[in-house]
Amino acid sequence: MIEKISVGLLGLGTVGSGVVQIIEEHQDKLMHQIGCPVEIMKVLVRDTSKKRDVNLAEEKLTTNPDEVLSNPEVDVVIEVMGGVEHTREYILKALKNKKHVVTANKDLMAIHGRELHEEAYKNNCDIFYEASVAGGIPILRGLVEGLASDRIMKMMGIVNGTTNYILTKMSQEGRAYEEVLQEAQQLGYAEADPTSDVEGLDAARKMAILGTLGFSMHLDLEDVSVKGISNITEEDLDYSERLGYTMKLIGIASKTNGNVEVSVQPTLLPVDHPLASVHDVYNAVYVYGEAVGETMFYGPGAGKLPTATAVVSDLVNVMKNMRLGVNGSSIIKPQFEKRLKDASEIYSKYFIRLHVKDEAGVFAELTTVFSNHNVSFEKILQVPFEDKSGLAEIVIVTHTASKQNYDDVMQKLMHLDVVYQVKSNYRVEGE
Amino acid sequence: MIEKISVGLLGLGTVGSGVVQIIEEHQDKLMHQIGCPVEIMKVLVRDTSKKRDVNLAEEKLTTNPDEVLSNPEVDVVIEVMGGVEHTREYILKALKNKKHVVTANKDLMAIHGRELHEEAYKNNCDIFYEASVAGGIPILRGLVEGLASDRIMKMMGIVNGTTNYILTKMSQEGRAYEEVLQEAQQLGYAEADPTSDVEGLDAARKMAILGTLGFSMHLDLEDVSVKGISNITEEDLDYSERLGYTMKLIGIASKTNGNVEVSVQPTLLPVDHPLASVHDVYNAVYVYGEAVGETMFYGPGAGKLPTATAVVSDLVNVMKNMRLGVNGSSIIKPQFEKRLKDASEIYSKYFIRLHVKDEAGVFAELTTVFSNHNVSFEKILQVPFEDKSGLAEIVIVTHTASKQNYDDVMQKLMHLDVVYQVKSNYRVEGE
Repeated sequence: MIEKISVGLLGLGTVGSGVVQIIEEHQDKLMHQIGCPVEIMKVLVRDTSKKRDVNLAEEKLTTNPDEVLSNPEVDVVIEVMGGVEHTREYILKALKNKKHVVTANKDLMAIHGRELHEEAYKNNCDIFYEASVAGGIPILRGLVEGLASDRIMKMMGIVNGTTNYILTKMSQEGRAYEEVLQEAQQLGYAEADPTSDVEGLDAARKMAILGTLGFSMHLDLEDVSVKGISNITEEDLDYSERLGYTMKLIGIASKTNGNVEVSVQPTLLPVDHPLASVHDVYNAVYVYGEAVGETMFYGPGAGKLPTATAVVSDLVNVMKNMRLGVNGSSIIKPQFEKRLKDASEIYSKYFIRLHVKDEAGVFAELTTVFSNHNVSFEKILQVPFEDKSGLAEIVIVTHTASKQNYDDVMQKLMHLDVVYQVKSNYRVEGE
Repeated sequence: MIEKISVGLLGLGTVGSGVVQIIEEHQDKLMHQIGCPVEIMKVLVRDTSKKRDVNLAEEKLTTNPDEVLSNPEVDVVIEVMGGVEHTREYILKALKNKKHVVTANKDLMAIHGRELHEEAYKNNCDIFYEASVAGGIPILRGLVEGLASDRIMKMMGIVNGTTNYILTKMSQEGRAYEEVLQEAQQLGYAEADPTSDVEGLDAARKMAILGTLGFSMHLDLEDVSVKGISNITEEDLDYSERLGYTMKLIGIASKTNGNVEVSVQPTLLPVDHPLASVHDVYNAVYVYGEAVGETMFYGPGAGKLPTATAVVSDLVNVMKNMRLGVNGSSIIKPQFEKRLKDASEIYSKYFIRLHVKDEAGVFAELTTVFSNHNVSFEKILQVPFEDKSGLAEIVIVTHTASKQNYDDVMQKLMHLDVVYQVKSNYRVEGE
């Protein structure tokens, strides 16, 4: 019988301190569930002398990774240090040393998930990473276990809190992107270099993980097409609202006839869609299953304690498996080979905002281009400018069309004499 | 090595046919997850000759429960027949015969959950019942595993689709209760005798289950205080909206200093609360955890395939445990003895609508009653009637007060000479 479970921690930043705090404060609940105490044995840090607000004896801190990774007393390694390449090496070493792994690292799992799963499988070890997607929301367990019997057809996620905060403020307060971004940086919701968030890369990593688990198919980060929010204007949000939509940065993963598409892009959703009322830094993942229909998981996407909750819940899972002697049994082996949709298989509605010459016959020319490619209009707004520029603004929402046809239309529009400029274009989902 | 897993089914109504359909259509996914085929071996029905739209050989149907419960070839019994007393006997017999149990029966689990858990534990059997609360939403797994490391402080659930449909239509379309109830009955959303739904009893059973799991404490159905929706008027909904609230039938389970309260009642929520935008027959459970903060699980609360998905996901869990030889390991033993809050420990805001005499000094009298019991006003609307009745309507939203003080105020109001009638009063939550 196991008398105690010992944990090694890689990193003691915000999430790491949260993990220490929860293991300490919830020791009674953990004991009740696993039947033995849990102890933090060693913690890898950069500087052992730094002042920290956690209750840990100084001799538990080390700057030598091997004191965690090769420590015979450590049963489970929790990785909350971030980074990709050296973190990958550490985790591979931990697994080779038969240590179970819990990580909150989406970059690592999106890029090296396949290799790490294989290494874990070889060593009969668990590797869990609930915290890597949507922080405190137990979405990975929901997909893999809660919906175990269903076929997932589509997932749509608000999986980046920074961009959701920015879009919420832009929409609700009519403010410009740059201004709200600065505010988000001051509040600590956006980093000094916000590229990874605002250009959709962070969301893409999470969607690669969700797609891999939801569709049981190894998806690589390169398979995710990405467009960020930095070009969204107040005009776009204003028109969205007038047409009954809310703009969100949405990660979409869909499967049709065995082929999948994964993408991240600013997307218009009807205001009564469950995702449309997810505001500020909150995250949510909407899942459409063949049998279950629509479900949604909502909660905090980041933050010290929410993320630490997901990490320690994974740890509980590992520890229960240790007590039962069944570690490694829940390693996910994909059921399907990767098959990606091509542009003719991706269907959506689109929002397009154009500046065109304000003269007779323009509309007929536009209509011809769209109808030549089998793209039809669902909604149209035409607004002449007051400024004597000789231009008018046209906003179109199309009926559902293939991405192939849509791309062809966009190509043609850009070369059309009567079109002065394509100001913006967005996907429309959820109807 | 187990070569095949055999399932016995009790009942072949709507959910039962859904279970047969999912096991058949998703056989490839089930095989991939558990590594062997699943077969439906025997099905208890009332009439073996009845025409059914499922693909089952007639010799698999039986009217003799022992052909399921005592069949040596049956590994897992799935109960989807409903009812309480004889169903309890069947399930106890199945467990005594070392068969694992999956049930969708909230009435059974709310009333006999403790006894069934104990019997399962004695026999090293699994008993799972995800489908019993909020149909297709994997909320029980979310609570027990996803938030395993956290302390749940509060749950608020829209766990009855019928009443949510009725309140949605009343609010959105300004229609009367009786009219919408009739429509719901025609649509099949409400039963011919709607008492169990509209009086909150169905929701109470689900809240007893959620409270028991979320707080790790055996709660009995009698511990849940219940008020239904049948007295809600269009005026109440109108005032709610004017004050910025949405009316929902909310199950509340909260824990403070180790004591819990579980109740079901019509409740006003701010319109921007995550539960306020859960419309029609959808269900959602909002969970507040000490560390994770706010999360919400949303989805279909009923229906053939959503409910069947939850049942078969539980079955997958049982079958994985069988393959690993660890059945019975996830039986939940409550961590705490039951301790209920008394009225002085239950805190809430309240909405009160009164008809009072429209004369000088009335407001001063009212104010005195409230302030004598330490209940203060947050919002007040006073509307004189045009009809010369000599009455005025007053709507009050209080600040947070103890139920004890609130009940005292209500007692006093009813005997106050200037108060003609207390028209309605509701709990206000979520601020």
